[in-house]
Amino acid sequence: MRRSRAFIPTTKEAPSDATLPSHQFLVRGGFINQQGSGLYNYMPLGKIVLEKIKNIVKEELDKAGCNEVQLSFVTPIALWEKSGRAETMGKEMLRIKDRNEAEFVLSPTNEEAMVALVKNRVNSYKDLPLNLYQINTKFRDEARPRYGLLRGREFLMKDAYSFHASLEDMKREFDMMEATYKKIFTRLGVDFRVVEADSGAIGGTGSKEFHVLADSGEDTIVICNTCEYGANIEKIFESEEEIDALNEKSYEELSLKNIEEKCTCGGTLSFKKGIEVGHIFQLGDTYSSALDAKFNDENGKPQAFHMATFGIGISRLVASVIEQNHDENGCIWTKETAPYTVNIMVSNIKDEAQMALGEKLYTELQEKNIEVILDDRKERFGFKMKDAELIGFPYTVIIGKELVNGSVQVYDRKTTEKTSVSVDAILTHIMDLL
Amino acid sequence: MRRSRAFIPTTKEAPSDATLPSHQFLVRGGFINQQGSGLYNYMPLGKIVLEKIKNIVKEELDKAGCNEVQLSFVTPIALWEKSGRAETMGKEMLRIKDRNEAEFVLSPTNEEAMVALVKNRVNSYKDLPLNLYQINTKFRDEARPRYGLLRGREFLMKDAYSFHASLEDMKREFDMMEATYKKIFTRLGVDFRVVEADSGAIGGTGSKEFHVLADSGEDTIVICNTCEYGANIEKIFESEEEIDALNEKSYEELSLKNIEEKCTCGGTLSFKKGIEVGHIFQLGDTYSSALDAKFNDENGKPQAFHMATFGIGISRLVASVIEQNHDENGCIWTKETAPYTVNIMVSNIKDEAQMALGEKLYTELQEKNIEVILDDRKERFGFKMKDAELIGFPYTVIIGKELVNGSVQVYDRKTTEKTSVSVDAILTHIMDLL
Repeated sequence: MRRSRAFIPTTKEAPSDATLPSHQFLVRGGFINQQGSGLYNYMPLGKIVLEKIKNIVKEELDKAGCNEVQLSFVTPIALWEKSGRAETMGKEMLRIKDRNEAEFVLSPTNEEAMVALVKNRVNSYKDLPLNLYQINTKFRDEARPRYGLLRGREFLMKDAYSFHASLEDMKREFDMMEATYKKIFTRLGVDFRVVEADSGAIGGTGSKEFHVLADSGEDTIVICNTCEYGANIEKIFESEEEIDALNEKSYEELSLKNIEEKCTCGGTLSFKKGIEVGHIFQLGDTYSSALDAKFNDENGKPQAFHMATFGIGISRLVASVIEQNHDENGCIWTKETAPYTVNIMVSNIKDEAQMALGEKLYTELQEKNIEVILDDRKERFGFKMKDAELIGFPYTVIIGKELVNGSVQVYDRKTTEKTSVSVDAILTHIMDLL
Repeated sequence: MRRSRAFIPTTKEAPSDATLPSHQFLVRGGFINQQGSGLYNYMPLGKIVLEKIKNIVKEELDKAGCNEVQLSFVTPIALWEKSGRAETMGKEMLRIKDRNEAEFVLSPTNEEAMVALVKNRVNSYKDLPLNLYQINTKFRDEARPRYGLLRGREFLMKDAYSFHASLEDMKREFDMMEATYKKIFTRLGVDFRVVEADSGAIGGTGSKEFHVLADSGEDTIVICNTCEYGANIEKIFESEEEIDALNEKSYEELSLKNIEEKCTCGGTLSFKKGIEVGHIFQLGDTYSSALDAKFNDENGKPQAFHMATFGIGISRLVASVIEQNHDENGCIWTKETAPYTVNIMVSNIKDEAQMALGEKLYTELQEKNIEVILDDRKERFGFKMKDAELIGFPYTVIIGKELVNGSVQVYDRKTTEKTSVSVDAILTHIMDLL
């Protein structure tokens, strides 16, 4: 992409309600913009990041044997009446009426619809297990939408639902999906922890959350410094007041607070702040029983499906990557999430040698399938450099005055170090970095 | 994909309201199912086809220099009040209220939102032209949802909006996009025609529609047998009664009717039925003026953007391919839209030699990146064959009794011919077909 032809409207001003770095930098960097309260548009760079995250999630789920589907976003209220959630979901589930006054909801989650889809279509234990997922729009009418993409009303979620002939098989899938989620978050390049969790409004017996560690996270978790143990404080403290009090403390305040208990492994437990980006549930037969969805077991006897459900907040991950990876100048994308990996900055586009090298490198990197953007704008060097830092490309090749001595600089966004590299070696140097 | 592990719930029964082949076969073939009136779920095969169409559209638009974005589906009514369409759009635009009684709409189209996105972010003629597109959910609260995916309420649409400094440049983009659309529909493998059209509710000065030719099409078009001329009858007849009367006639009835006029090229004009799958508009400055969206021209003078807009019905295309390509036994997918290109059918899975060859061919085709499904179900040959015809895989390799003589059969779904091929030559034979 040539920057002069791209629509990347960066700006110095952050929205007045933007308190979090991800909210500020995603707006300032031209990734997203607000359409209404809790409603966001993705501009080209934001859309690229969103698609990258979607693709990684899709690839790993497909490898794990899950089948992609796509459910209608607008769903009849009748489905929710069958499960009882028409009563219990509260105002977060937005009800709407069509031109004939028939009642529908904007899907906040899809347990009922997915059970209805499988009901009478999977009839035998021989057709199980089955794991269906979608990456689709959700709507939750939050009382107080805030924090940009982290707590929006319309958002993109991956929701998967698995169907099993036995409790044991459901638990096998649950463990397999935990492993799959670890692969996904590892590929995304985020520092995350798996923690034991409350099951909340979805219901079920066992659940785990996946948290991206970030000082600004809304959730408070406890993790062990020795073993893999971790838990959301909602799981380990009983008093709501105590939980609220801990959640209201900043990471710095929490760090000062001792936890008296040691982990069973002997390690030390400590508080961390996290952003919940994934949640997996052992759901049991709550929904299949409520919707009378059954299969015939080995003895030909009808049984309600054993189910598990698995969510990942896709649009929330866009913000989480930045909440964890930024500095005072802007975004620091991980390699797998960056909108472009290499930014070629021609300091002075009127300098023929600089521009020629920029074009040559641009072509060469494209031929090697590197995602590259050429900053060919007629702007000052300082302006373009600030822009590159704000957007957060992993590497920027600065083609400037040093070119007369046969060298260029490579700026590493993460370390903020600049390295001089000879023009002859630049292509090899970049390929070695990736 | 192994058929024994796939979720492809084919069925003998079509919905009672399904009058069109695409509706019947997409439901019977396990591609889609109805969630509510005009609301459809895509099951795994349907989702694969939908994604294939999306990807082809995206690839060609990206090549044409368009930038992908994604707008919020729920949009504030305020945007529609500015353009005046809050008044004029009627009941098809579904209005909803959130928990605070604030009014929103489920986007039926996105002119206003796209102009609002570009306003104050593109300020100079130097940043033009700009063409932004999204492939996103739309909702139109049809009075009478019918025909399955062809006239649903929630659907997937590609909508693009271009911004220009001059009328000439807008017309250049319009022509370029017409050429891009031709590439898209050609790649999809459908027989289509470009016709002159009315601009309808969107407004604007010039517009063209892209029709997939199908006897069951809702629209009536006139095409020349010699030159490329074509027009929707809405464009050439003035009387609404005359237009309605023609649209109500079947293709057979229309064929009997003469058109008195000859085409200016001397060719003969005739009636055809078409399904509108694309529409491109020269929009002018209606929306940019209404929303006060301006750029500075070469003299530094503020001017409203000249605009054009370009739609493709993505989910509608899934049905259109089948409406044009089917027989009495089911779907006939084109090569680019087929959910799997090759179906390997093992007639008797208990026959070790048959199963071994099936597995070998399955692995070999996967290694060559051919999209292949292995029908390894314990079902009768006739049942599996009917299923393959219903779903409409382009090629089915039948591994059956002839294997003892060293040969298998290749069934071509389009011609319905079976060809005997020696086992040694089967891989080469298939690769030559593709």
